Amino acid sequence: MPVLHDEIPDDGDFDADRKRGEFDHITPEDFVSGADNPPGWLGSADIDRARHQLPIAYVEIVPVRTNEFGQIEQVGSLLRMCEDGAIERTLITGRVLFHESLREAIARNIAKDLGELALPMIPVSLQPFTVAEFFPTPGVSEFYDARQHAISLCYVIPIAGDCKPRDETLDVEWVAPSNVVLDQFISQMPNGHGRIVRQALAWAGSQS
Amino acid sequence: MPVLHDEIPDDGDFDADRKRGEFDHITPEDFVSGADNPPGWLGSADIDRARHQLPIAYVEIVPVRTNEFGQIEQVGSLLRMCEDGAIERTLITGRVLFHESLREAIARNIAKDLGELALPMIPVSLQPFTVAEFFPTPGVSEFYDARQHAISLCYVIPIAGDCKPRDETLDVEWVAPSNVVLDQFISQMPNGHGRIVRQALAWAGSQS
Amino acid sequence: MPVLHDEIPDDGDFDADRKRGEFDHITPEDFVSGADNPPGWLGSADIDRARHQLPIAYVEIVPVRTNEFGQIEQVGSLLRMCEDGAIERTLITGRVLFHESLREAIARNIAKDLGELALPMIPVSLQPFTVAEFFPTPGVSEFYDARQHAISLCYVIPIAGDCKPRDETLDVEWVAPSNVVLDQFISQMPNGHGRIVRQALAWAGSQS
Amino acid sequence: MPVLHDEIPDDGDFDADRKRGEFDHITPEDFVSGADNPPGWLGSADIDRARHQLPIAYVEIVPVRTNEFGQIEQVGSLLRMCEDGAIERTLITGRVLFHESLREAIARNIAKDLGELALPMIPVSLQPFTVAEFFPTPGVSEFYDARQHAISLCYVIPIAGDCKPRDETLDVEWVAPSNVVLDQFISQMPNGHGRIVRQALAWAGSQS
Repeated sequence: MPVLHDEIPDDGDFDADRKRGEFDHITPEDFVSGADNPPGWLGSADIDRARHQLPIAYVEIVPVRTNEFGQIEQVGSLLRMCEDGAIERTLITGRVLFHESLREAIARNIAKDLGELALPMIPVSLQPFTVAEFFPTPGVSEFYDARQHAISLCYVIPIAGDCKPRDETLDVEWVAPSNVVLDQFISQMPNGHGRIVRQALAWAGSQS
Repeated sequence: MPVLHDEIPDDGDFDADRKRGEFDHITPEDFVSGADNPPGWLGSADIDRARHQLPIAYVEIVPVRTNEFGQIEQVGSLLRMCEDGAIERTLITGRVLFHESLREAIARNIAKDLGELALPMIPVSLQPFTVAEFFPTPGVSEFYDARQHAISLCYVIPIAGDCKPRDETLDVEWVAPSNVVLDQFISQMPNGHGRIVRQALAWAGSQS
Repeated sequence: MPVLHDEIPDDGDFDADRKRGEFDHITPEDFVSGADNPPGWLGSADIDRARHQLPIAYVEIVPVRTNEFGQIEQVGSLLRMCEDGAIERTLITGRVLFHESLREAIARNIAKDLGELALPMIPVSLQPFTVAEFFPTPGVSEFYDARQHAISLCYVIPIAGDCKPRDETLDVEWVAPSNVVLDQFISQMPNGHGRIVRQALAWAGSQS
Repeated sequence: MPVLHDEIPDDGDFDADRKRGEFDHITPEDFVSGADNPPGWLGSADIDRARHQLPIAYVEIVPVRTNEFGQIEQVGSLLRMCEDGAIERTLITGRVLFHESLREAIARNIAKDLGELALPMIPVSLQPFTVAEFFPTPGVSEFYDARQHAISLCYVIPIAGDCKPRDETLDVEWVAPSNVVLDQFISQMPNGHGRIVRQALAWAGSQS
């Protein structure tokens, strides 16, 4: 599948045959500027087959605004256009690519959804606050993904810069943990993503 | 690939088309007794292709013996027969199968290496103490796996029962964290597995 | 303050002048049998003064029953007789004594509330799932303790044995995380202890 | 004990009778500018008595420089003048004051040692990477503190700003985790503080 200039590789893109090192000096900006898009993204047939054969590694990010003491002042959620035209509320989530490190995957997915000036403060340790297991069968757990079995490493990441939603992301909305609107937002996040927000706030010690 | 009676599915086996729920009442003993071996293990061609296309989700377990206060008294390591006939020292490690939960994967891999009477005390939270990223290119990180890009969720798991090494696992050796032999054992674990032992002991607050 | 035979040292007891090593071979049973009660418990005047002068280190334990995969099947809570004769629902909580290790404090407080046959499975790492800060001023945080500023390291601890409530603890009640009764129990735990149960379940990945 | 203008309250200062809320709008700068020094610091007799009666709650901070991916690029250590005139290498460490939150204690102690422009990035969760237990008896654990039994919550904190060592802190030295000099620095940190650096790097997944 050819990747066009200035196009962000999306979740169905692929990455075989890419050699280690090609990502070494790539910053989120490189993914945006397009000229240095990583080679080797595969067609959708391959990723579709893999999705029915083995668990897919994901990162899922709860974006937050913090004060100078590290306390969460606002929790972010994304409004996104689905393939069927509906709008859904969700978090930042994406597949880890072949030969991509978790830190690269986190930076790339944040840049993809929030733009290149978001200035994420990626944590010192990659110990996730939880691991969410999404199964393709509804009802067996609180986490459901029709496409695949996904193992998602979940992180809370403070965003220090400016957000410019991109591509299918229509808007980023921020709300204080103590605001009653948060309950409404969480209830709008389907398939367990709202639960991940609650787990994040519990882990952070935020009132919610 | 047919799975024979009493055979433990190995790392190259596969699991497509297995429905959620087939593992629901399966205990490690089921994997051992053979009559209820999960259906759907795939041939090695599929898993080999996937290994060159996307990261593979793994669990890696540092088995320990603890005292009544939860302190590590002994760290276990496995002596295993490699395919080329050499013997290597390693930890308990295995792929997460399609539609298998992390807790099932942990229990299955421990039963596979230590036998069905090991009585692992799987922790209440699946927050791993570290996530080890193995790349198929030597030298780019401390973790190397020639076969694949593996994302390995690492856990320290107390073993309360009796260990009977099985299959390619020749022996399980236990040593106290304070014993100088541990340094020797760690140096014998290649490709970063020894480093995972050190990280486990640091996280547990054990002297080493 | 003299400590009588078979009496469990309570929260107002003290421990000055005790030498390191006196606890080394003490198991929870020793605290119960009485003959080996640690020396040096101080009078209540000293502990009262300290409570108004500096933060007091505590451990707080959410007792759980787990299945063979480590999943929480039941959460425990204590019914306790208050000094004023009222009955309150609470968790296992107690001060860390001078020269006592955290592991000793955890074992001692569990034995004190659940009896000597509770068989707690103290975790390999003492990294708490949260740190609750109780302040003596109502309303400033979700955690309130009229007596003191307490810094409480919180742990989820599986109980493998039999519970015999002791002293002021009247009963231990167990309920499944998915049971609607849990919400009622949590609402009965005042001063933030119910919130600690919610944080524990979120960290453990339990449905609640 | 009177606290003079522009003086940083030191570890022997005290805090009784301070009301909750007096710290609410206090930033590290307030501690520095002096005019708003918190009231209620006690004399050394009281703190000395408490140190022999019960465990003292501490925070201990490993300052680091990170890159845009959150990886540790440098680890900081302090050179400090001891009371006897000797120079020792250490970390940022300090007592939590009465009615002071952990986040306030972290910010205050960093400002005290690194100055008011250090811009620490205090983490979203106060789950410490380890809890170090210092006992006043040499040899019983790897952590020793002649003055007291201290329970120290340990954090790795990225420093984004400029450091101006203050008071008894003579200098802050930074070294890359992969630099052989780090081993030398660690060996110069007595009483277990070097071990905390190793635990921090293991938890962060840094090579060392």
